Amino acid sequence: MSKGLPKRSEDYSLWYNELVKKADLAENSPVRGCMVIKPYGFSIWEKMQAEIDRMFKETGHQNAYFPLFIPKSYLSKEADHVEGFAKECAVVTHYRLKNDENGKGLIVDPDAKLEEELIVRPTSETVIWSTFKNWIQSYRDLPLLINQWANVVRWEMRTRLFLRTTEFLWQEGHTAHATKQEAIDESVQMMNIYATFAEEFMALPVVKGVKTESERFAGAVETYCIEALMQDGKALQAGTSHFLGQNFAKAFDVKFASKEGKLELVWGTSWGVSTRLMGALIMAHSDDQGLVLPPKLAPIQVVIVPIYKTAEQLEAITNKVAEIQKELKAQGVSVKLDNRDTFKPGFKFAEWELKGVPLRLSIGPRDLESNSVEIARRDTKEKEVFDLSAGLTSKIVELLDDIQKNIYDRAFSFRNENTREVDTYEDFKKVLDNDGGFVSAHWDGTSETEEKIKEETKATIRCILIDAKEEEGKCIYTGKPSSKRVLFARAY
Amino acid sequence: MSKGLPKRSEDYSLWYNELVKKADLAENSPVRGCMVIKPYGFSIWEKMQAEIDRMFKETGHQNAYFPLFIPKSYLSKEADHVEGFAKECAVVTHYRLKNDENGKGLIVDPDAKLEEELIVRPTSETVIWSTFKNWIQSYRDLPLLINQWANVVRWEMRTRLFLRTTEFLWQEGHTAHATKQEAIDESVQMMNIYATFAEEFMALPVVKGVKTESERFAGAVETYCIEALMQDGKALQAGTSHFLGQNFAKAFDVKFASKEGKLELVWGTSWGVSTRLMGALIMAHSDDQGLVLPPKLAPIQVVIVPIYKTAEQLEAITNKVAEIQKELKAQGVSVKLDNRDTFKPGFKFAEWELKGVPLRLSIGPRDLESNSVEIARRDTKEKEVFDLSAGLTSKIVELLDDIQKNIYDRAFSFRNENTREVDTYEDFKKVLDNDGGFVSAHWDGTSETEEKIKEETKATIRCILIDAKEEEGKCIYTGKPSSKRVLFARAY
Repeated sequence: MSKGLPKRSEDYSLWYNELVKKADLAENSPVRGCMVIKPYGFSIWEKMQAEIDRMFKETGHQNAYFPLFIPKSYLSKEADHVEGFAKECAVVTHYRLKNDENGKGLIVDPDAKLEEELIVRPTSETVIWSTFKNWIQSYRDLPLLINQWANVVRWEMRTRLFLRTTEFLWQEGHTAHATKQEAIDESVQMMNIYATFAEEFMALPVVKGVKTESERFAGAVETYCIEALMQDGKALQAGTSHFLGQNFAKAFDVKFASKEGKLELVWGTSWGVSTRLMGALIMAHSDDQGLVLPPKLAPIQVVIVPIYKTAEQLEAITNKVAEIQKELKAQGVSVKLDNRDTFKPGFKFAEWELKGVPLRLSIGPRDLESNSVEIARRDTKEKEVFDLSAGLTSKIVELLDDIQKNIYDRAFSFRNENTREVDTYEDFKKVLDNDGGFVSAHWDGTSETEEKIKEETKATIRCILIDAKEEEGKCIYTGKPSSKRVLFARAY
Repeated sequence: MSKGLPKRSEDYSLWYNELVKKADLAENSPVRGCMVIKPYGFSIWEKMQAEIDRMFKETGHQNAYFPLFIPKSYLSKEADHVEGFAKECAVVTHYRLKNDENGKGLIVDPDAKLEEELIVRPTSETVIWSTFKNWIQSYRDLPLLINQWANVVRWEMRTRLFLRTTEFLWQEGHTAHATKQEAIDESVQMMNIYATFAEEFMALPVVKGVKTESERFAGAVETYCIEALMQDGKALQAGTSHFLGQNFAKAFDVKFASKEGKLELVWGTSWGVSTRLMGALIMAHSDDQGLVLPPKLAPIQVVIVPIYKTAEQLEAITNKVAEIQKELKAQGVSVKLDNRDTFKPGFKFAEWELKGVPLRLSIGPRDLESNSVEIARRDTKEKEVFDLSAGLTSKIVELLDDIQKNIYDRAFSFRNENTREVDTYEDFKKVLDNDGGFVSAHWDGTSETEEKIKEETKATIRCILIDAKEEEGKCIYTGKPSSKRVLFARAY
């Protein structure tokens, strides 16, 4: 199975694409830029969704569902917003097909033209705020804490499975508040929830920060974000949370009567993570043999491969395995017995390695005799023969915890080793070209400088760290004074 | 809250619409024919989804995700299929907007016209079978048991919240099999799963049957269905499961190498239920005071309303309630304390009645003294004062079970009383006009007769019951011989 997976060191990009396909995560669809998420990939996404959804609900958010389509005129109501999305919209113009009278087959029926075109939602602020207008009258209706799980469409010219696709799946939270501070607190809370999810479940260390003006969400006053570093030294934006100020309240005239009886504009936030997280998960941990999945998100945590020649051997092994499975399942461990008789053990080993199953047990006649089992870790590829009388289940639970921790630590060390402070533009370019990673440098705070650096080096300011310390310095590009460093990187 | 809810007996249709809105289930959106599913409505749908999804997984199905868009040419590949869906398609023709040079604001960019138009999926057979072609080579790849949760769009001219909307949410299962019998068995299995879900969770009795040719899914060889009866005597199709024969395998050239090494066409099924189930749930049980929810799908199973005048009283009650809540939650009962101080108990009673919460507990200073609580059932509106020393939690669990059973029994009796055998066309019309309900009658088996009866009476053949018994008779319309009765009704 793993034969044909290119090496990361030779072609990281090709390695990624091949891995996504060969590990049965996703594939390109017949529709340009849209992907098919395959069952194995989708089951990882479902595990992500379940945890994220739980965290949202624990913080008082409720799910709802808003229309797929947005009237063209709605998109125009917030000036920055339309500027940001108009150029990549799928536009519905007709509502019927018909058979061509001249025998050209199925054509769009010109009589079924919409009076107003509909946009397939690239994000739902406009349609949601037009609805919030009816839901919010008084301070008693606030805060309004809504989330939706949905598909969205942004017409991308260059697409890559999970990382950038025309259609993608995501959640988008939209909240409304009585005060500015409450809305800011909400934005920060959601950034923190994303960071917690990334670190504790994806085993993905992230930095937390705010975006510069030019990287901000179209329509936001402030964009909070989490950023992660991939193994090729490129950064990946893993989640954003926007403080919208009163921009959408103004655009859709959403006001509330305060306790004092005054009519005031509502404060808003929006925040989202998408199937892009799948790309981050894949790239952060995997190796030349395939996926490495954190146990907390692995659809199968333990796979058992029987090694046998005769039917009697298989039967004896299967009986033993049944006991093991039962005990593991009782402890909440997801375990699969690979008893396919059409493939040899070596093939199965490679396949489960490719698919990133954290632990593999193999058991043959000699193991049965000695009451033992071979345990192989996916992350370190270490193998050990384990005496079953020593308590397999607690061993497995312990190993899964250890793998979760180990791959986080590995990614954390990698990021730390690949975060470098530089003080000159020359060093800046050298580091980008030779090492990649995050580059921490002084910047004069202007969009012009940011743009020039981007043009010349392809590096963007990923964020201004939330906990950036005050430090006098000079912009690496203009030499103008700067009070703190920002984090640059080339990015996905 | 419930003031203004029309009576069912006066205007059933208005009652339904108002109930959906006032109980915070859904509302019309600014986009024609599309609805907003509000948090309370969505939380019921989430509970439905969770149970259905569990049943699918227990029977070996896996979730995946396929593109929202379908190339126009794909839709045309199966002749009946395109005939069925071409007239109600949302068509994407462009991928960009721009600012008009003549100042007309945001317009569709004529330079961004798609070479081939994309259809927003009305259902996904075509895009999925085009993918199955790559997934299926050998008998070892079969059966392929896939499901997706998705939004679909069918351009409806007359829409009603949940029952018929341009966009709706659903699941669509798509499976591929090596033999005809296996595919038929799968179709029947999924109809049975739908029936089990409807009866055990929605407390909704359903009949199981097959559709006549003219009511069949576009592209199916056989359509299995479940049909339910609403309180106004109209039938509602609650779920369908299609045996597709080899129609889509032929259209997309999907073949497999059999064990004997022969190339054969694959057999298929597809099946779905949608947010329409919400409409069925609402209409089947609710009354003039509002929703009546089956406990198994109620987002809140027990609401507790404190009755107090002073802060001391409230504190004492709250302490008692905390104990009760803790115990109930430990038993898996979802319970909410309504401690809003801006509303009076009477208002709260009406609101939770409107929202269909199965049990309401109220507790005041006198209850505290006597160590008791008042329990009110939503389904029967019975109230009783319950001595807390007798064990409240087991009482609540028992009552919830009883309510689940009672509303099922009520709906079951209603359906039985409203299923009538008739033997003449005159009686047939009389029953339809005076009583409604299911009408069991002989039919000559032709689409012509079916069509004429529909034109003249608005009644359609809902299904031919799976367990219809052989019985010699004469078609009520043509007098031609018939070997079994079929079930007619006016329907949603």
